[in-house]
Amino acid sequence: MTAATNRQVRLAAHPVGFPTESDFSRTETPVPEPAAGQMLCRTIYLSLDPYMRGRMNPGPSYARGVDIGEVMVGGTVSQVVESRLAGYTEGDILLGANGWQDYALSDGAGVRRLDPAAAPISTALGVLGMPGHTAYVGLLDHGRPQPGETVVVSAASGAVGSVVGQIAKIKGCRAVGIAGAPEKCAYVTDELGFDACVSHRGDDLPGALRAACPDGIDVYFENVGGKVFEAVLPLLNDFARIPVCGRIANYNLTGPPPGPDQVARLMGLTLVRRLTFRGFIVFDHLDRQPDFLRDVAAWIRDGRIKYREDVVDGLDRAIPAFLGLLRGENFGKLLVRVSEDPTL
Amino acid sequence: MTAATNRQVRLAAHPVGFPTESDFSRTETPVPEPAAGQMLCRTIYLSLDPYMRGRMNPGPSYARGVDIGEVMVGGTVSQVVESRLAGYTEGDILLGANGWQDYALSDGAGVRRLDPAAAPISTALGVLGMPGHTAYVGLLDHGRPQPGETVVVSAASGAVGSVVGQIAKIKGCRAVGIAGAPEKCAYVTDELGFDACVSHRGDDLPGALRAACPDGIDVYFENVGGKVFEAVLPLLNDFARIPVCGRIANYNLTGPPPGPDQVARLMGLTLVRRLTFRGFIVFDHLDRQPDFLRDVAAWIRDGRIKYREDVVDGLDRAIPAFLGLLRGENFGKLLVRVSEDPTL
Repeated sequence: MTAATNRQVRLAAHPVGFPTESDFSRTETPVPEPAAGQMLCRTIYLSLDPYMRGRMNPGPSYARGVDIGEVMVGGTVSQVVESRLAGYTEGDILLGANGWQDYALSDGAGVRRLDPAAAPISTALGVLGMPGHTAYVGLLDHGRPQPGETVVVSAASGAVGSVVGQIAKIKGCRAVGIAGAPEKCAYVTDELGFDACVSHRGDDLPGALRAACPDGIDVYFENVGGKVFEAVLPLLNDFARIPVCGRIANYNLTGPPPGPDQVARLMGLTLVRRLTFRGFIVFDHLDRQPDFLRDVAAWIRDGRIKYREDVVDGLDRAIPAFLGLLRGENFGKLLVRVSEDPTL
Repeated sequence: MTAATNRQVRLAAHPVGFPTESDFSRTETPVPEPAAGQMLCRTIYLSLDPYMRGRMNPGPSYARGVDIGEVMVGGTVSQVVESRLAGYTEGDILLGANGWQDYALSDGAGVRRLDPAAAPISTALGVLGMPGHTAYVGLLDHGRPQPGETVVVSAASGAVGSVVGQIAKIKGCRAVGIAGAPEKCAYVTDELGFDACVSHRGDDLPGALRAACPDGIDVYFENVGGKVFEAVLPLLNDFARIPVCGRIANYNLTGPPPGPDQVARLMGLTLVRRLTFRGFIVFDHLDRQPDFLRDVAAWIRDGRIKYREDVVDGLDRAIPAFLGLLRGENFGKLLVRVSEDPTL
C-alpha cells in the first residue's frame, strides 16, 4: 500500500472544554525522503489514549504540549519502507511515536523492534505496551496489593483498567471494576474474571460500590476522578493506597467544579485513615519494562490475562474516535488502523 | 505534695466549631486506692496536643473518641505514690496516658519508666516523646529527604515542626519553616537554625514562601492545612512527598469551606507532578521508637536539636491553655505542670 501524500492530523486550536473537530486540522504533505541515518516508516496502527487530551492544552504538563500547527503526538506501530539507517531493514516492524500521520522519518531514537511471531503487533500499543506497563507498575509498585485485599479500578474495561483487575486477581485479591455500559460490566466480570463490576451510570453508585466491596477498599486505581472518586472515598480502608493514573472525568473541565471545597475533607480522611495518594507516570518506570514484558506476556500465554482491542479503520476516523474515547464510547484498547497490517 | 481530692477535667459536650470552656467540666473525686496489681500515680506533667481536638468529636477517628462525662485523655509524666504492682516502687517516674487529672491508677499497661538522669522528664512528652517521634518517622520514613532538597514544615516552632526542620538540616536539606508570630519565626531561624521562616500572617504568604524556596519544595510536612497548604501547592516539585501529620486549621470547621471544589485541581497536580500524599499516625510506627530515641537523644546531646517548652502551671489552667494551643498561642511544646517536678 502506498500513498501519494502523507496525510496528517495537526492541532489547530487549544480546546476550551470538550474538544471539537475544529480543534484539529487535516493536512497533506509529500511523503518525506529519508536522509542518511534515517528511515521512512509507514504507520500501521496509531494508539489513541486519554493522555492526548492533556497534550492539547497550552503550556507544559508532565510532557511538552503539542504546539498549534504541530502533528498530534501518539504511539504507533509502523513498518520500515526505506532505510538509510544501519541495523534497520525494509519490512521491519517498529514501535515508536510517529503521531497522527501516514508516514514519518525516524533516526531510530526511542524505537523498539517488534517480533510479529511473539505477539500480534497491535498489542505493543495496548496490553504489551504503554497501557499494560502503566497498569503493571501502578498496581504492583504503587498499589502494592496483598492477597485477600480488595482492589477497585475505574475505567475497568479499558486498556489500563482491564489489566489492573486481572493482575489483582493473579495476586490473590478481590477485583472490583467500575465501568459504564452494561455490556462493558458484563465483559469485565464474565470475560476478564473480575469478582464484580459496578456501572457508574446506575442510580446509586455509592450503594452499588459498597455492596461490591463488603470488606472496604484497599487499593483504588484512579483513572477517572469525578463522581466515581467520590463514591470510592468513604469505602477506603485504613492504609489504602490510591495510585493516581488518570482523571479523565476532569480533563475537559474549564474551571473548578462548584463548591463546597472538599480538599479539607479529603486531607482529613487521608490523615485519619493513613491513606497514600500517589501520582505516577509510566515513563518514570522504564526500568520495570523487562519485568512487565516478561510477566504479562507469560500471563497472556497462560490465559490469565485477556485483552480486547477496539480498532477503527482509517486515519480519517481518528478524530471522531478520539472524541468518542473522551466520552467513554470505546470498548477495549482504542487503535486506528492507518494502513493494512502486513502480519495478519 | 498531696491533694485531698483528685481534680479532673472531663468532656461535657462535643464542641460545635471552636471549643469553649463549657465543653469541659471540672470535677473532684476521692483519690482512688490501688488494688492488688495496681499503682497510684500522681500527675507531674500533662501534655496538651492538637490531636485532642479530634478526640472531642463524636464517633471514632483513628482512635476512640472521649465520651461525654469521661476524663479527657492525654499523655502524662507521673510519679508512683503507692504501688501494689510488682516491679514498680514509690517514687518511680513513668510516662503514661493518665489524662487531665491529678491522680490515676495504673496496672502498668502502656507505661514506660523514665530515667531522670538521662533527660529532663518533661521531654518524654515532647522532643523525646510522641511529638518528636512523629517528626522523626514522618520526615524520615514518609518524607524521605535527600541532601540538597527543600523541606518545608508548617507550625515550625511547635513540638513537631521544630524537630522536623532540625532533622532536615541534619540530613543536609534546606529547611524552611512557616509560623505565625514574628518572635516564633525569629526563633525558628536564629535558635533552631532553619534556613528561612515565613509568617503565615504576612500580606503575601504565597510570594514570601516562593522567595524562601527558590528551588521549589521537595517535602512538605503538613501540620496545618488551610491557606498554608494552598500556598505550598504551586511550589511542589515533581516527586514531592507530603506526609500528612495534622490539619489544625481545619479541626474546628463545622462544614466544608465555600467553593469552588479544589479536589480536581489537587488530584490533577498529584498526577502531573507525581506527588505522594500520605497520612500517618505515630502509633503505627512504634517499631521505630528505639531508633528515634537513640538518634534524637544523640542529636540533643550534640546540640544539633534544640527544643523549647511552654509550661503552664496548674491543672486549673489546662482548658485555657488548650484553647490557646488551637489558636496557635503557645510557643514551643505545651505542657501543664500539674504538680511539682521532683527531679528539678
